[in-house]
Amino acid sequence: MSDDENLSEEEEAEEEEEYDGEVEQVDDEDDDEDEDLELGACLGLLSLKISEEEVEEEDTTMELGDLPHPFVVRDLEPSDFRKGHLKLLEQLTKVGDVSEEAFTKRVEEMRKLGDFHHVVVIEDVEKQAIVATATLLVELKLARNCGKVGHIEDVVVDQTVRGQRLGQRVVCHLAGLAEQLGCYKVILDCTEANAPFYEKCGFKPKELQMAQYF
Amino acid sequence: MSDDENLSEEEEAEEEEEYDGEVEQVDDEDDDEDEDLELGACLGLLSLKISEEEVEEEDTTMELGDLPHPFVVRDLEPSDFRKGHLKLLEQLTKVGDVSEEAFTKRVEEMRKLGDFHHVVVIEDVEKQAIVATATLLVELKLARNCGKVGHIEDVVVDQTVRGQRLGQRVVCHLAGLAEQLGCYKVILDCTEANAPFYEKCGFKPKELQMAQYF
Repeated sequence: MSDDENLSEEEEAEEEEEYDGEVEQVDDEDDDEDEDLELGACLGLLSLKISEEEVEEEDTTMELGDLPHPFVVRDLEPSDFRKGHLKLLEQLTKVGDVSEEAFTKRVEEMRKLGDFHHVVVIEDVEKQAIVATATLLVELKLARNCGKVGHIEDVVVDQTVRGQRLGQRVVCHLAGLAEQLGCYKVILDCTEANAPFYEKCGFKPKELQMAQYF
Repeated sequence: MSDDENLSEEEEAEEEEEYDGEVEQVDDEDDDEDEDLELGACLGLLSLKISEEEVEEEDTTMELGDLPHPFVVRDLEPSDFRKGHLKLLEQLTKVGDVSEEAFTKRVEEMRKLGDFHHVVVIEDVEKQAIVATATLLVELKLARNCGKVGHIEDVVVDQTVRGQRLGQRVVCHLAGLAEQLGCYKVILDCTEANAPFYEKCGFKPKELQMAQYF
């Protein structure tokens, strides 16, 4: 690990080859316009404590908060098998040959975990197609006064609708949910290349992710 | 993020100041003796497929697998409140003022999550003291043929018993459990400084962890 940059490139090369599940595909918009306001908007969704300084950001919150037609944010449903949820996930990672029965069974298993497991989607209601998704796990801890930590996973936005901040919306939605559920922080793993996107969502680089494959 | 090395140092400095929960405290032994065998031992615990080449490693597995007296590996119990589980966690992160009632309630909440949440401990049965612990969360996915991913958290070994590979034992124990439960990989976040320890346990650097505090 003497050269992180090379290591990161190696890992990314491996990603491409293995088509691994850990690369978040997000909006590839490059505009830095109103970056601070976007961040404020994101955080504004998560907190009711609004200072005078944040009034402008509150307006921006509304701007980010109201999804334009034909998009709707909601929890994943078994019927999303037919609305292309797995085709969307294929833009992120290997999916394999998952039947409608297996999909429904897994969604029901997830639901049984209640507040500990949430998959959100954005649906294009005109096309009845899932265009963005992300997952939140809630970890129970004994430390931090029996605290909780949110883990965000599997963030992906359909390539046909990128550049409309849908990635930011699903991430902010889950970060807000994590805070509502009593988490003191939310964490995620991403490539170096996707870090600037998550920084726009209010995240900061923290540690190193390690993985062991079986 | 142009300079990872500095960023990492900054983050570590911040860790010290904030006494944050994400620094894994592990065995600080520096001997590289039999490093490959140690890794083989770790992996050996996880798989019954032993090739001829791995016979020697199988012996080492036994060496790592049999905990010396007075240590025992088991699941966390509510009575571990009185055996110093929280004092051990204080070597890793802020714990706060957790009552025995709150501890018991949280352990019961964790148990209700069944296979999705495991906290293991190593107890010194002579001293009736918890000397090591680690946590495994199991994430349900739709991708990867409705796969599962293990997340390892809160790895800590008591400073009085470091250098006896107890950290490696709890990590290998949880990685083995993750594999048994059907995970295709197990992941964790750690500082750059602790990465070599996790490499001994069979992990490789993968991505960047990002965090947002509320």
